[in-house]
Amino acid sequence: MLIHEDRLFPAEPGIRKIAKALYAQVRSLPIISPHGHTQASWFAKNEPFPDPAKLFVQPDHYVYRMLYSQGVSLEDLEIGQAELKDPRKVWGIFARHYYLFRGTPTRMWLDFAFQELFGMEERLSAKNADHYFDVISEKLRTPEFLPRALYKHFNLEVLATTNSALDSLADHRAIRDSNWKARIVPTFRPDSVVDPDFNGFAGNIAKLGEQTGEDCSTWAGYLKALRVTRRQFQELGCTATDHGHPTAQTANLSPAEAGKLFQLILAGNTEPAQNELFRAQMLTEMARMSIEDGLVMQIHPGSMRNHNHLIFERYGRDMGGDIPRTTNYVDALRPLLDQFGNEAGLTLILFTLDESTYSRELAPLAGHYPCLRLGPPWWFHDSPEGMMRFRERVTETAGFYNTVGFNDDTRAFLSIPARHDMARRVDCAYLAKLVSDHRLEEDEAMELAHDLTYGLAKKAYRL
Amino acid sequence: MLIHEDRLFPAEPGIRKIAKALYAQVRSLPIISPHGHTQASWFAKNEPFPDPAKLFVQPDHYVYRMLYSQGVSLEDLEIGQAELKDPRKVWGIFARHYYLFRGTPTRMWLDFAFQELFGMEERLSAKNADHYFDVISEKLRTPEFLPRALYKHFNLEVLATTNSALDSLADHRAIRDSNWKARIVPTFRPDSVVDPDFNGFAGNIAKLGEQTGEDCSTWAGYLKALRVTRRQFQELGCTATDHGHPTAQTANLSPAEAGKLFQLILAGNTEPAQNELFRAQMLTEMARMSIEDGLVMQIHPGSMRNHNHLIFERYGRDMGGDIPRTTNYVDALRPLLDQFGNEAGLTLILFTLDESTYSRELAPLAGHYPCLRLGPPWWFHDSPEGMMRFRERVTETAGFYNTVGFNDDTRAFLSIPARHDMARRVDCAYLAKLVSDHRLEEDEAMELAHDLTYGLAKKAYRL
Amino acid sequence: MLIHEDRLFPAEPGIRKIAKALYAQVRSLPIISPHGHTQASWFAKNEPFPDPAKLFVQPDHYVYRMLYSQGVSLEDLEIGQAELKDPRKVWGIFARHYYLFRGTPTRMWLDFAFQELFGMEERLSAKNADHYFDVISEKLRTPEFLPRALYKHFNLEVLATTNSALDSLADHRAIRDSNWKARIVPTFRPDSVVDPDFNGFAGNIAKLGEQTGEDCSTWAGYLKALRVTRRQFQELGCTATDHGHPTAQTANLSPAEAGKLFQLILAGNTEPAQNELFRAQMLTEMARMSIEDGLVMQIHPGSMRNHNHLIFERYGRDMGGDIPRTTNYVDALRPLLDQFGNEAGLTLILFTLDESTYSRELAPLAGHYPCLRLGPPWWFHDSPEGMMRFRERVTETAGFYNTVGFNDDTRAFLSIPARHDMARRVDCAYLAKLVSDHRLEEDEAMELAHDLTYGLAKKAYRL
Repeated sequence: MLIHEDRLFPAEPGIRKIAKALYAQVRSLPIISPHGHTQASWFAKNEPFPDPAKLFVQPDHYVYRMLYSQGVSLEDLEIGQAELKDPRKVWGIFARHYYLFRGTPTRMWLDFAFQELFGMEERLSAKNADHYFDVISEKLRTPEFLPRALYKHFNLEVLATTNSALDSLADHRAIRDSNWKARIVPTFRPDSVVDPDFNGFAGNIAKLGEQTGEDCSTWAGYLKALRVTRRQFQELGCTATDHGHPTAQTANLSPAEAGKLFQLILAGNTEPAQNELFRAQMLTEMARMSIEDGLVMQIHPGSMRNHNHLIFERYGRDMGGDIPRTTNYVDALRPLLDQFGNEAGLTLILFTLDESTYSRELAPLAGHYPCLRLGPPWWFHDSPEGMMRFRERVTETAGFYNTVGFNDDTRAFLSIPARHDMARRVDCAYLAKLVSDHRLEEDEAMELAHDLTYGLAKKAYRL
Repeated sequence: MLIHEDRLFPAEPGIRKIAKALYAQVRSLPIISPHGHTQASWFAKNEPFPDPAKLFVQPDHYVYRMLYSQGVSLEDLEIGQAELKDPRKVWGIFARHYYLFRGTPTRMWLDFAFQELFGMEERLSAKNADHYFDVISEKLRTPEFLPRALYKHFNLEVLATTNSALDSLADHRAIRDSNWKARIVPTFRPDSVVDPDFNGFAGNIAKLGEQTGEDCSTWAGYLKALRVTRRQFQELGCTATDHGHPTAQTANLSPAEAGKLFQLILAGNTEPAQNELFRAQMLTEMARMSIEDGLVMQIHPGSMRNHNHLIFERYGRDMGGDIPRTTNYVDALRPLLDQFGNEAGLTLILFTLDESTYSRELAPLAGHYPCLRLGPPWWFHDSPEGMMRFRERVTETAGFYNTVGFNDDTRAFLSIPARHDMARRVDCAYLAKLVSDHRLEEDEAMELAHDLTYGLAKKAYRL
Repeated sequence: MLIHEDRLFPAEPGIRKIAKALYAQVRSLPIISPHGHTQASWFAKNEPFPDPAKLFVQPDHYVYRMLYSQGVSLEDLEIGQAELKDPRKVWGIFARHYYLFRGTPTRMWLDFAFQELFGMEERLSAKNADHYFDVISEKLRTPEFLPRALYKHFNLEVLATTNSALDSLADHRAIRDSNWKARIVPTFRPDSVVDPDFNGFAGNIAKLGEQTGEDCSTWAGYLKALRVTRRQFQELGCTATDHGHPTAQTANLSPAEAGKLFQLILAGNTEPAQNELFRAQMLTEMARMSIEDGLVMQIHPGSMRNHNHLIFERYGRDMGGDIPRTTNYVDALRPLLDQFGNEAGLTLILFTLDESTYSRELAPLAGHYPCLRLGPPWWFHDSPEGMMRFRERVTETAGFYNTVGFNDDTRAFLSIPARHDMARRVDCAYLAKLVSDHRLEEDEAMELAHDLTYGLAKKAYRL
């Protein structure tokens, strides 16, 4: 047996009993997945997933960054190859190094999928690598393992993807136009057209103009084009935007100043500080548009992208070489909050990779401003210890109702049930501790378990 | 029942038993409250507290910042009104939103007061809001609920208020001149006359001159006026000063440089950096005066005041819109410590809102410099988890004897017993864990429980 | 009894049982001590340690910084005296203040030595100070307490000292040339010849030239001299270098730029920023040499040395007046990592005094770059809570195999077994918790306990 029925519950019998009772109420609730990186094309086409290596190793930088850190070459893992030459060999390398994941959440997510989806019972190792490969490969060819079947099997109620503002959304349209009853919605991610440092920015702006028929050589036309695009996303079910900036810096320029800056940016000879100011201003513009059109706004700051320049040059973005940095919110968000902080119509969800901000900045901000909510622990902190630190550091100041439930934030579709299950278990463990401490009564904990699992995400993301 | 006899004690039976034994020794010790924000006028006049809304909602920014963060308007709560038009309605709004406080210390403080002082047994909700309102209102009209009676009932041994350097201290004088046997002492808080960015700074300096008869247009006269005022505070029992600066920056200018800066400040055309330098220099001046007159010095840095400018404009200071920032101590305190750090006669108590400094800066500093002590977790961190993090992060480097017991730091008089009780429980839980780990023997833990509850505060604050 | 058989094991019976089983497998493993500050001369000469005060109080800034923080004068402790005038009096002061160490790891290390080495059973206090002094003094004169006997008694397999690049290594040579079978190896610490702010830098460079016969007035000659010296260290068993810089800043100048900077530095009229740049460049040069000669590289950044200038002036370096600062790794290391980050032949071990970097920067970096490993919690964080925070914050992202086992990092030879024992217990407690959480199976935990105690240190340090 790879995963234990009582995993992640507190050891002390009194608390464990409470945790299990809470979990029993929420374990089978539908999954709300309001933020993630699965591909709509999977569901539009509904083709079988290829082999185990392509499914578990290639798309998951949690997996191959660890292998790489211990000397496994990305070439050997065939990372970046559209078709794998020798998936069984890749799988074998992964299996041989599976011990590296001891103590990591990746190990728990994988074991969950191996057991619950593929019926494996013995820990993955060099010895049973081929057996794993064969069993998984075979199952992937069955109808039960087609993307749409898995969506249903996973008990998903809604699944949000993340989409460039330049995405045609053809796959979302195809899903909508099919007979399939499912709710797969895009999320508006405009980084490529609001961040002057984004690869190909000028071309992206041009493409935005073409796509919307607006004149993107003027500030007014550019803003109009963004409004139009947001509207197109909304027509396909989108309820949220997402902003992956290096910092949380916002700005509040006058329209004249902003327009002038936009022209400088378009001309392409700006300093880094001007690019940062433009990104900052665009967060405030996005907040303004959110107040108009009701899209919930998410800010995911604080990652230094492509830290490993060799990997970036050879393999491109999102290859496990992004590293968090110290992130400031209290000064950075002030310009936006000065303008819109007291607007009840705005929902602005903040994420962090800098846990020192939980109790110092984020909980005090979210515990005061009506527009602010705290997103769940993100990326490196989306783990049992990380989730517990989040609750322990934010709840006392911001309470539960300024948080928004769980995000799986994953590219690995098969890990979704495992990730939500982990969040449910950790939240129940936390609530059980509060009950055991007599800080909360059991009926309240029950209501909270439901809210943290289901209610808060639906409400915050307006789903 | 709202509060449980064993709340906040560890769940593991062996540790719980030790914690309870420790707590039994300290639960009834008198309360030393060396830092807080109650009003001397309450005790000077000894008039009944008005209604429940005025008592529990209006003065407590812990309460209404949470309500505000969830969309309750401050207008509806009648915040800032001298007389409430409809206290029952305000109370009803509060009761309806009481669930927002789940998992917060505010909830525990309130339940403590509701049960222990007013005999309530059922959790506050929309349903019983009127009943609560009636019971509390009635009790508040009885002699047992007059401020002086409560002071006695709470078993207070000494209660320090916090007073502007410009406060006439008439209320403290009135208490002293009455027959009432109690120890209510002022704390010297000179922010309004040492911080050039304080509202009305120039007028404040003028008032300081009038009040003391010193010529505050010269550096020497200004310092003299501060010395005279400190002396006046001391005559009414004051043993400590308090400094609420944006940062912990100190400076060590020559008298000539300092005098020159003072003239620039008075002339009113300084840059922000010069204002910061002046505040920094004034901390060092205050340390110098403390060595002379024996007043214990407290520094409370790191809060960005009035972050929400709309709230500040409408309601003024201290309305729940202050947000902590990253705080540096190691560089900032060096100028002061270079001058006075090795003076055994000086006691300088440091507080923080940036928990990342506990193990990195504060414990190493306090575990070395003879003048330094660490204040208890403050404000947003004055909570069960916050207190535990403080002990876990500072004890191993600074020990217990470089800490100073508990501060309730509250404007909410009725929360004082609840807050001290919480601190006693958490400290006993921490000590019990050390005993269970065999890191401490039980007789030592007993002595420490007493010191943390009573002895260290009296000693550090020279009470 | 001073130390309990079950100290530091978790209280919950199920977890405790697992922890004890793990610990039973590793408690008697030989000690690998790959980083510390003991003196090779002790083992070269093999003379008796002098009295208890000279042994336990004088060399240990953990001890006297705490005493100093509570008003004990360093004069009274005879700190800095080559020969103590009244060791019994110094011991008495220490004994009287022993209660100050409650809750600190120092207390546990001392009690371990008192009981395990000297057979004491009653807690040190003013009352039994003389008895302790007599018993310890007597034992120190026996053959069993000579340095070489203790080395054997402690079950040391290898002990690394830390040595200036200017050290003649005569003591190491003497040990090698004696018949004694032991492995005491130097570590190459070049701070005095790569840090322009180091006391007597110019003279140090001159001495380096003399020592190696290289022309240290040129950039090429200087680098050559460093290479030669590293080789001399290697001949005496050295496998690692150590770099104690104020920050983790690295640089990647061209040879021409670096040579030019070196000439400015030699000329002695540089700005602080140029000195910092030179240190930064030298880390990259050291990495280059490590790739050539295979020495493992350690960076110990983030301490502000000699914060207390009075103590520094009177007593010199390393007197307990060093205070940690905020430390950045993600930007600082980038120049070096851009050049060498993907070199499998390089091992670069990072330490920190800023725990906020564990989950934010260090674990993500080590969980990606093949050359990076994380050193154990260091200095102020080398404690039960500190070790647990380290595991909890780094394991989920970096796993166990990007860490390198324990360093005792001590000047106090007699504390070595106590420190390693503490690390073994805390690691077993952490592993037991993972097993109890069903995040790890017991056979894996067993293997990991062995690796964390023995295998990882040997492998990472190439011992």
